[in-house]
Amino acid sequence: MTIDMNDLGRRAAAAARSLARTTSDQRAEAVRAVAAALRADAAVILEANRQDCAAAATAGMSGSLLDRLNLDDSRLESLIDDTEAVATLADPTGAVIDARTLANGLELSRIRVPLGVIGVIYEARPNVTVDIAALCIRTGNAAILRGGSETLRSNRALVSSIQRGLSSSGMDPDAVQAIDSPNRKYVRELLRLERYVDMIIPRGGASLHRLCREDGTIPVITGGIGICHAFVDETADLASALDIVENAKVQRPSVCNALDTVLVHRAIASDFVSQLAERLIPLGVTLHADPAGLVASGDRLGLVPAGPRDFDKEWLSLDLGVRIVDGLEAAMDHIEEHGSRHSDTILTSDTVNADRFIQGVDSAAVYVNASTRFTDGGEFGLGAEVAVSTQKLHARGPMGLEALTTYKWVGRGTGQVRG
Amino acid sequence: MTIDMNDLGRRAAAAARSLARTTSDQRAEAVRAVAAALRADAAVILEANRQDCAAAATAGMSGSLLDRLNLDDSRLESLIDDTEAVATLADPTGAVIDARTLANGLELSRIRVPLGVIGVIYEARPNVTVDIAALCIRTGNAAILRGGSETLRSNRALVSSIQRGLSSSGMDPDAVQAIDSPNRKYVRELLRLERYVDMIIPRGGASLHRLCREDGTIPVITGGIGICHAFVDETADLASALDIVENAKVQRPSVCNALDTVLVHRAIASDFVSQLAERLIPLGVTLHADPAGLVASGDRLGLVPAGPRDFDKEWLSLDLGVRIVDGLEAAMDHIEEHGSRHSDTILTSDTVNADRFIQGVDSAAVYVNASTRFTDGGEFGLGAEVAVSTQKLHARGPMGLEALTTYKWVGRGTGQVRG
Repeated sequence: MTIDMNDLGRRAAAAARSLARTTSDQRAEAVRAVAAALRADAAVILEANRQDCAAAATAGMSGSLLDRLNLDDSRLESLIDDTEAVATLADPTGAVIDARTLANGLELSRIRVPLGVIGVIYEARPNVTVDIAALCIRTGNAAILRGGSETLRSNRALVSSIQRGLSSSGMDPDAVQAIDSPNRKYVRELLRLERYVDMIIPRGGASLHRLCREDGTIPVITGGIGICHAFVDETADLASALDIVENAKVQRPSVCNALDTVLVHRAIASDFVSQLAERLIPLGVTLHADPAGLVASGDRLGLVPAGPRDFDKEWLSLDLGVRIVDGLEAAMDHIEEHGSRHSDTILTSDTVNADRFIQGVDSAAVYVNASTRFTDGGEFGLGAEVAVSTQKLHARGPMGLEALTTYKWVGRGTGQVRG
Repeated sequence: MTIDMNDLGRRAAAAARSLARTTSDQRAEAVRAVAAALRADAAVILEANRQDCAAAATAGMSGSLLDRLNLDDSRLESLIDDTEAVATLADPTGAVIDARTLANGLELSRIRVPLGVIGVIYEARPNVTVDIAALCIRTGNAAILRGGSETLRSNRALVSSIQRGLSSSGMDPDAVQAIDSPNRKYVRELLRLERYVDMIIPRGGASLHRLCREDGTIPVITGGIGICHAFVDETADLASALDIVENAKVQRPSVCNALDTVLVHRAIASDFVSQLAERLIPLGVTLHADPAGLVASGDRLGLVPAGPRDFDKEWLSLDLGVRIVDGLEAAMDHIEEHGSRHSDTILTSDTVNADRFIQGVDSAAVYVNASTRFTDGGEFGLGAEVAVSTQKLHARGPMGLEALTTYKWVGRGTGQVRG
């Protein structure tokens, strides 16, 4: 089957224009209609997902990926609940950001409006299809979705259901379209549809980010790669620091806001590193320590020497880098050099150092005495998230509904001309 | 001379980090010190500019470009005044965008912070060098400037003076650096310094925009290309409409917010087009009309037939497209197809149509009964502008100080871990 990407983009842009003219209530109703359609089509969706999972298992997909691909009854139900919750979120569009009357009487304001057409490229996880669709519809945007080849059947069923929901509420079903082909040439074509697409969000690894930046002509928001740090200052409450490091590393190691490296102030290194080893090694964590860290542990606690690139790794596993530093400045220098600008935390009782860390660490989320695991749209109260941005333009950190909007300047006059 | 762009970028990033730790008052003082240095170095700057202008004239540069290149005594003085004015502008950094306390007690806020390092690529106009430097210093950003080869001597003198001003106020002079070579390979290297540079602003034509998007790996803000429209509705006050169209076309035709096409409601076409011809042709304007426009004019008023691409042109000259449309929807369709999302205005007495135009036209600035010429940082009260964005991500329309910032999420806790 051949996909006419230009036509797909043109229809998305027309749908975005049409959605931008609807009211917020109409869009909330459309989101509820989508949830109802998904509920009505549950059997078809689950069967399509079963086929995807069976094919993936046959192809030898690993257990954790298979788990991300899998949609069972209860996961679909909670996905539908989440969709209904999006209908209740406050809609940022239409808000007046600021307004003033110029000396000549021109009434000038900035109004928040939908971005237009959002292209999202992702893998596995069919829940992303529904999340993005709901957030885009709520804010009056159109979405072009390109999931992984392993979810083709699931996404076909989901998008078909979403489109039925849109139609049933009087919305243009082209507001949510999927690229229904595993052929990568369509990804490259999507990345150059700058006439119709306003933003590209690649949810994947560094090579996908590079493809989008280097082959594309559309503004891209990248993120989701977190090399996250905790700096344990000399004044840290060590019991609390151990709790936080354990939580940040162990609670869910496979996600981007999990901890990758702990930086330990030299003054407390021998105390803290030995307690850390006693706490984490029994939980299955491998501690990759620099030479000073090995010394601090007395070389007898089962730490392993850190390899040359270990401090540049997003582990996504029960591994943790351990490095001894001379103090706050050295910790911030390490984060500057090795971090990915995602989430970093300082564990300290020193409020001056806390403030210096907040100001000096150039990351999307900076914490004091808290786990890095909080960097999440749901935890932050955004209701849901489109992605977690680690770039600085447009949106940073968890991207909720506001990140799907832009503004326009509106000038209402009575014949004003420029002097 | 060889420029080590990686080193230049590294030093810019270090300067940005150092500026981000200064107070707003210190940065205002630094902007004033830069103004003082420019004043002290005026003779050297003017002599360098004289040499640039002489070389450009010998090379056959056109009068209007020469005029943009030229810095005389009074232009330099007003540029220095503008710099001093930037010191008085409100600094957006440090502002708390929003804050909340999560159920677990984590105090979460979003704080406005400098973007980091801004790369700007532009031509002629040495005033841009000073404008961008002042705005970046004020907001705690570093700038890497790449002016045109025709302004190399002027920019060398200006940047050297700016750096002296920075040093004299205790700031890192690497906060403002120029790429002191006409070799285009350094532009391409700049576009790939994603490790150090956070945003690229190309101030130039479509081919420069394409180069930045296609060869670069850094987020780009494009703009400054305006195909601007006025729609004269059937209920327009024709006298006011004529004033606005004249102002938008004639007052300064060479700039991006000047009018390019007037769309005329069919019901008033014969009245309005003939009055328009009587008003504008004596001012030297050539009206390029579609067949219905020629008919409306009675074919005897000196309009010329519009060529096939005339409605897709940013004229930048005393030329104006004239097209007759059936009404508001047709006008908005024309703008959607031919516009550049910069500035468009509706001239009408019908408030319903005014609101539909505001909602339906997807441009950075949308006006009712006012000239498109107002789209400008100074006119909008932003104090100054870095560029005029026609894209939708990050910043739209005139970009002032706020567009040079991003935010970070700050979470202050007392030991919170994720459940």
